[in-house]
Amino acid sequence: MTSTPLWQGTQPAADAFCARHVGPGARDVAAMLEVVGAGSLDELMEQTVPASIRLRGEMGLGAGLSEPEALARLRTIGGRNKVMVSLIGQGYYGTVLPGVIQRNVLENPAWYTAYTPYQPEISQGRLEALLNFQTMVRDLTGLDVANASLLDEATAAAEAMALARRVAKSKADGFFVDADCHPQTLAVLRTRAEPMGWRIVVGDPERDLDPAAVFGALFQYPGSSGRVRDPRAWIETLHGAHAVVAMAADPLALTVLESPGALGADIAVGSMQRYGMPMGAGGPHAAYMAVRDAYKRNMPGRLVGVSVDSRGEPAYRLALQTREQHIRREKATSNICTAQVLPAVISAMYAVYHGPEGLTAIARRVHRLTAILAEGLRALSVRVETDAFFDTVTVAAGGMSVLIRARAEDAGMNLRAIDEDRVGISLDETTTPEIVRAVWRCFCPDAQRLAAMEQALSVPDSLLPQSLLRQGGFMTHPVFHAHRSETDMLRYLRRLSDRDLALDRTMIPLGSCTMKLNATVEMMPVTWPEFCDIHPFAPEVQQQGYAELFRDLERMLKAVSGYDAVSLQPNSGAQGEYAGLLAIRAYHRSRGDEGRDVCLIPASAHGTNPASAQMAGMRVVVVACDDQGNVDIEDLKAKIAQNAGRLAAIMITYPSTHGVFEESVVEICDLVHAAGGQVYLDGANMNAQVGLSRPGAYGADVSHFNLHKTFCIPHGGGGPGMGPIGVGAHLAPFLPGVPQEGGVNAVSAAPFGSAAVLPISWTYMMLMGDAGLRRATEVAILNSNYIAARLSGHYPVLYRGTNGRVAHECIVDLRPIRDTVGVTVDDIAKRLIDHGFHAPTVSFPVAGTFMIEPTESEGRVELDRFCDAMIAIRDEIREIEQGRITAEQSPLRHAPHTVRDLTDPDWDRAYDRRLGCLPGDVVPESKYWSPVNRLDNAYGDRNLVCSCPDISVYAEEGAA
Amino acid sequence: MTSTPLWQGTQPAADAFCARHVGPGARDVAAMLEVVGAGSLDELMEQTVPASIRLRGEMGLGAGLSEPEALARLRTIGGRNKVMVSLIGQGYYGTVLPGVIQRNVLENPAWYTAYTPYQPEISQGRLEALLNFQTMVRDLTGLDVANASLLDEATAAAEAMALARRVAKSKADGFFVDADCHPQTLAVLRTRAEPMGWRIVVGDPERDLDPAAVFGALFQYPGSSGRVRDPRAWIETLHGAHAVVAMAADPLALTVLESPGALGADIAVGSMQRYGMPMGAGGPHAAYMAVRDAYKRNMPGRLVGVSVDSRGEPAYRLALQTREQHIRREKATSNICTAQVLPAVISAMYAVYHGPEGLTAIARRVHRLTAILAEGLRALSVRVETDAFFDTVTVAAGGMSVLIRARAEDAGMNLRAIDEDRVGISLDETTTPEIVRAVWRCFCPDAQRLAAMEQALSVPDSLLPQSLLRQGGFMTHPVFHAHRSETDMLRYLRRLSDRDLALDRTMIPLGSCTMKLNATVEMMPVTWPEFCDIHPFAPEVQQQGYAELFRDLERMLKAVSGYDAVSLQPNSGAQGEYAGLLAIRAYHRSRGDEGRDVCLIPASAHGTNPASAQMAGMRVVVVACDDQGNVDIEDLKAKIAQNAGRLAAIMITYPSTHGVFEESVVEICDLVHAAGGQVYLDGANMNAQVGLSRPGAYGADVSHFNLHKTFCIPHGGGGPGMGPIGVGAHLAPFLPGVPQEGGVNAVSAAPFGSAAVLPISWTYMMLMGDAGLRRATEVAILNSNYIAARLSGHYPVLYRGTNGRVAHECIVDLRPIRDTVGVTVDDIAKRLIDHGFHAPTVSFPVAGTFMIEPTESEGRVELDRFCDAMIAIRDEIREIEQGRITAEQSPLRHAPHTVRDLTDPDWDRAYDRRLGCLPGDVVPESKYWSPVNRLDNAYGDRNLVCSCPDISVYAEEGAA
Repeated sequence: MTSTPLWQGTQPAADAFCARHVGPGARDVAAMLEVVGAGSLDELMEQTVPASIRLRGEMGLGAGLSEPEALARLRTIGGRNKVMVSLIGQGYYGTVLPGVIQRNVLENPAWYTAYTPYQPEISQGRLEALLNFQTMVRDLTGLDVANASLLDEATAAAEAMALARRVAKSKADGFFVDADCHPQTLAVLRTRAEPMGWRIVVGDPERDLDPAAVFGALFQYPGSSGRVRDPRAWIETLHGAHAVVAMAADPLALTVLESPGALGADIAVGSMQRYGMPMGAGGPHAAYMAVRDAYKRNMPGRLVGVSVDSRGEPAYRLALQTREQHIRREKATSNICTAQVLPAVISAMYAVYHGPEGLTAIARRVHRLTAILAEGLRALSVRVETDAFFDTVTVAAGGMSVLIRARAEDAGMNLRAIDEDRVGISLDETTTPEIVRAVWRCFCPDAQRLAAMEQALSVPDSLLPQSLLRQGGFMTHPVFHAHRSETDMLRYLRRLSDRDLALDRTMIPLGSCTMKLNATVEMMPVTWPEFCDIHPFAPEVQQQGYAELFRDLERMLKAVSGYDAVSLQPNSGAQGEYAGLLAIRAYHRSRGDEGRDVCLIPASAHGTNPASAQMAGMRVVVVACDDQGNVDIEDLKAKIAQNAGRLAAIMITYPSTHGVFEESVVEICDLVHAAGGQVYLDGANMNAQVGLSRPGAYGADVSHFNLHKTFCIPHGGGGPGMGPIGVGAHLAPFLPGVPQEGGVNAVSAAPFGSAAVLPISWTYMMLMGDAGLRRATEVAILNSNYIAARLSGHYPVLYRGTNGRVAHECIVDLRPIRDTVGVTVDDIAKRLIDHGFHAPTVSFPVAGTFMIEPTESEGRVELDRFCDAMIAIRDEIREIEQGRITAEQSPLRHAPHTVRDLTDPDWDRAYDRRLGCLPGDVVPESKYWSPVNRLDNAYGDRNLVCSCPDISVYAEEGAA
Repeated sequence: MTSTPLWQGTQPAADAFCARHVGPGARDVAAMLEVVGAGSLDELMEQTVPASIRLRGEMGLGAGLSEPEALARLRTIGGRNKVMVSLIGQGYYGTVLPGVIQRNVLENPAWYTAYTPYQPEISQGRLEALLNFQTMVRDLTGLDVANASLLDEATAAAEAMALARRVAKSKADGFFVDADCHPQTLAVLRTRAEPMGWRIVVGDPERDLDPAAVFGALFQYPGSSGRVRDPRAWIETLHGAHAVVAMAADPLALTVLESPGALGADIAVGSMQRYGMPMGAGGPHAAYMAVRDAYKRNMPGRLVGVSVDSRGEPAYRLALQTREQHIRREKATSNICTAQVLPAVISAMYAVYHGPEGLTAIARRVHRLTAILAEGLRALSVRVETDAFFDTVTVAAGGMSVLIRARAEDAGMNLRAIDEDRVGISLDETTTPEIVRAVWRCFCPDAQRLAAMEQALSVPDSLLPQSLLRQGGFMTHPVFHAHRSETDMLRYLRRLSDRDLALDRTMIPLGSCTMKLNATVEMMPVTWPEFCDIHPFAPEVQQQGYAELFRDLERMLKAVSGYDAVSLQPNSGAQGEYAGLLAIRAYHRSRGDEGRDVCLIPASAHGTNPASAQMAGMRVVVVACDDQGNVDIEDLKAKIAQNAGRLAAIMITYPSTHGVFEESVVEICDLVHAAGGQVYLDGANMNAQVGLSRPGAYGADVSHFNLHKTFCIPHGGGGPGMGPIGVGAHLAPFLPGVPQEGGVNAVSAAPFGSAAVLPISWTYMMLMGDAGLRRATEVAILNSNYIAARLSGHYPVLYRGTNGRVAHECIVDLRPIRDTVGVTVDDIAKRLIDHGFHAPTVSFPVAGTFMIEPTESEGRVELDRFCDAMIAIRDEIREIEQGRITAEQSPLRHAPHTVRDLTDPDWDRAYDRRLGCLPGDVVPESKYWSPVNRLDNAYGDRNLVCSCPDISVYAEEGAA
């Protein structure tokens, strides 16, 4: 026996987590390198990443932690947050997330690892859940059409303002904002209005509203102060002036108060947070927007609609996608891309579980407690300013204000500090009589006096204004009445999730989104009370844990990106773009460069880029790309010259949206800088860069990081995302401010966006460490090159770097097939479903192609399964080429196949239905069955139905 | 507006949870009462439960808590447990449960709500997981056949002793037990041996072993002290004397130490706890048993085997069920019924995830740390008694012992207190160098001296005895090599769980087990560190939370049952029976009634009853039942008379296994008491009694409570269960003692059995309160009567009470159908799978019947869906009756149907395959597809394969 250094081999391997996160093991990597034709990973990287940008040293993150170490550290950090009873209100409330929904949605990979439902056939479960969401919102708001969530109430209000501008006949430049709106809403409205040249008018609608001066208005209902006012008269005058009226309405109050639609509003927005989603220090929560029917085609965000499949069966899909930014680009008036699908699903399920009677009971209980609180305070001679209220009152406490809040904190409660003299108190679903008594004690510590007061207290049933009591029912659809027992709810959730194909069953080889492992350990802290149950505007001293986590995260993002400063506020990639461009704009203005308003954008850019630029008040000038998808340097020079003195920025994606590390990136940065412009580098493809190159180091000035791509926040079926930005030191002063009075450039309702999901990215980076993160990138690039190598004999692979390498994604060209035999990219995408796969990105960035990004988390077996499926499909196409079957007759055109195909008594197709349903190596035991046949998209847009169809639709279908 | 009492309506309804737990809402209940023909629930209860036993008042549990209240209280209770670094060892070790397994098995209803895999077609997922378990155990132990888990290591050792007695040719009456066995093992062996008349000989095998005097022996490997000894010589001499040798072996040590099989042992037992299952204050954990091939038919417990389905495809099933107690009754030599399926699945998945190389690396790491610890202590002049060790050393600390343990506790660590002078130290997967240093500090607080010692320390790589190093590989099957990334593991878990049908998709209307909701809120505390990470023999002061929870639980169980004392130790229903009978036996003996050894058992009893009686040293005398399944009072009187003076007890089940509240239960109790006997009332059917009648109040002396039936511990696919017992005051002194030196009647390895799942039952009762629990029972009875009413026009319902009512379950008679048209009870059970249902209990208590227990958690929609399926099946049978098709040709005989049926190119059956696959209202979108066709049971028992078959089997099948 030999002796080794004492502690050697006594701790888990430093790459223990990395080996779990990265799919291919060492032997697989060796075998795959052989297929790719590279001697080592390092050699492959040298061939792929331009030397000019290659990071040669460490990033400085150190070694990775083990999973237990990371959890232990998170427990310590969480312990530094102080969970209090929050009575702050201001748009964030205590709520009870039913356990069955927490475990089986929020903590269930079948839900949280799903992608955006662009492939509707394999997304029927969450599409139904989202249709429930839309139906719920439609019913609560009394409007005609609701979308399937926006990012937060403040940005939803900004979207309402922009929508008002689009549709209002008024030519005025003002937008009236009720002074009783939440301060964060006002802050975001100011941010959004300024670059567009809209004038924000804040005031009391009773006194200050000049309908002729505004194209729209926003009223908070109930007001931030708690006050419930009747807006009917104001709405009438605004309509008379051809202005458009939006209301920001609390969805719990709407169960007892008259709906915005009934009051005459054109648009309603709000937050569904209190429908089961923890406060989470600000998010993620689903915001909603509902509009009159006339405005539905102008509404931003995703809209789920009902259509039929090729058998005429009802089926769900995303509707009216032609409205969206990825199609309308700079003509879009919103850059909204990500929704908040997972929170929206949770809120919809909360409503399904409680039903209208349960929600109303909660609302009545909260109101009654508030009424008792208020009357008790009055009986104690406290001045309660709010007369008509739902769940919130403002109390004039004068000089006692600070003392009262301090007493509340001592008792474990946070009150809202409105100003020096006033405190706000908001009750919610979690409020108990004991809490009401504890609040009384803050105002009157005299126990005897309190007891006597309570003894004598008599409170009317309701203090809601009679004229505003809700008329008529809501949530009458059977889905809101069928799942009252936990057993029923559990089965409903399982049934829906089983219809969907998520990462827990298959790779999702999207090029437009990095769909890597969302490790359980990363997800665990998300539902810990220490991170969940924190109000975003709780005193800083209670958020020390979050502060530490944010500091760590900022430090790690800076190390990864090479930037000098980071803002965690933007709660989506598009918000990050917007925030970054605002910083550039502010920077130029700070130097007196007011005229710099041109944003250069390559033709290959993602559609959000031009949309964001437009929203930031910039003019978009398109730069051509060469036939390799690279920026055409000559055209760039020409465009720079044409816009001399006006150049604000260029927005480039790196590696390019074509999946290539352009050699010229440093040159592009230099050219733009030389012309006085700033470089916005879209971080969507950071997964090809982490550990290998750093945008901040090779010339970019600002980037956003899609934490839901590279940094493991799960897609949640289409959100939440997070889009923090990193900037050079010169842009740091222009990062988003706190979304409160005086905060400049605020882009989200909460200071740290969707703070509750940030522990995910923190955990990922802590676990991986420097070497692990680099390894992940290397294997992501290897996996992509492996797919390119395996498929290139069967499909042309477009766009490669100078050494013939692709980056972390590759594009296969399906246009020749379409041109010769008429098989479309959709045919192939749907046929992949029969093989049990989610399709790659379809027709982006090049129509008629697949963009395939396997990510590092996929192992060789799964990559081969995918390549085998693609090759099997190629063989089917060959059958058409050889004239044995037509495209119309082939299984490709009829994909995806369903059990209905297997049982169709009138089957008369030209192919064996067994081959249709079970192609390639698919075995019955593990077969994923698409619940519907191919969707008819045109039918759905022609016959737009965006809420739960009457049950009779199904009955008829069943009978037919 | 009127004024109401101040706080009225300001809190969630007291029955809020009850309304979630109980399926039918108020409107459903009313409608169902109408079908049943009862005016009210109360009237139905009056008609069902005999007045003589009816509880008229409250139980005294008070009102139910809300879910947040219960969770808050659990947090407080959990906070009173102190989570320490456990170095106690003694069979319980720190371990790291991989997050992906925790979330997707332990916290996933698809796994934890499944039933025992008696219906193999819908259990292929967990059967595969259990086959992995068996393969893992077989490989580790080097023996031929392993079962799919026993309850804990101590009872597994007792089973090994009993098995040795069954198979040994030696006629000796002694059983040798290595003095270095864990004390809890010794305690349980003593309990088990005494009634059987076996002599336990404890000693040092080197010194004290007399092979001729024993029929078997047990060696601990490594010993409880940590010592690793070579047993080959002892085994040889024992074999020479025709004795049988068992080894209790640590499965982590077995990755580096030679296997028991290779050393010559005949049987190996042990605990798989440290393969990922938290200590949980004692359980649940899977114990294992492996035996030589010759003994496989004598092995207790469940055995998973490989067979084929009707298409010849490989498929899994429970093998050799004819060995089991429910068939062999009093001839059984074990009453083992429940296994520990969920923990076994977790341990198997832990091995799948780590693979042999990962497990070995962990073992080497733990051993190296132990070697460093020991050598360091020696360098500090501490006397380490253990020379050859794996992970545990015994240290002679003399008078310093107490001080050293106190220092350890101050540092957050528990050492084992072996005796006054010695401490034990066990390391594990969670041990870090820092912990080793902290232990050193306990022995030597002098930092400088420690630093110098560490500096100078040099430790050989391994201190394992060379002669005992493991030779040859293990876990060579591909399944232990295919799932190294979390993504792969996640998908494997999902794929398996999708094959199974559990409560998250369908009712499981078993009569033999109550399959009610396992609410999420009840499951949440199970994975909290405050309940998980507690060693069962940690100092009491660290377990104050558990102590409080146990007190509450005992109080509630007493209130529910009317008994005076409760023991929470038995970790299965059968263990409860055994413990209860031991108490009766001890009671009689304490009164000098040594001759009382007759146990009366009605013919209708569950097979575990006679098996338990036999194990408790009693003679079973069967009492006849009348044609209604009730105890035949005249025969009872006769049997009592025949056994005058020898009557020990009667074991009855109430309501009877026939699902009827026998009117005569009080009379039975009186008759037995008058003859000096005690009444054991099997609590399996407590779900029909809670809140309506209390066994302890109407005459029974002892009962066990299946917490996994009535009190919501999930079945976990076949365990864990818990079987606490309640007794009258006179039996209280004879309840199980602490399973340590001197503890009498100990029946489980841990003092509170599977303590970690007890929070589930605590939460359930706290949430339901008095009224909720009663309501649950009432609705359980209503649901059963509803099914009886709906089905009685289609199938004869056997056995009803005097008013024509059934209890919480009902038996439908399928024998007439078999007799007239040849359709078997199995045909109907399998046909229900096609409808998406788990079958009811088949052929128990009456062959050729279904026993159906819907439980209160099923709502009317699901009950109707089930009844509709049963009626649709009746219609199919009618086709046979009317001569349109034969039984052999009918879909009934070919059920369950699979996708292979739909795609079979040679389909030539007499019925439409669509009707075969999609009967009744089954729609393709929600169809559950059985992964295999009907199992061929005979084939599997003839060709017994009990470990993972070579992958080539599948390949050949695929090719065929």
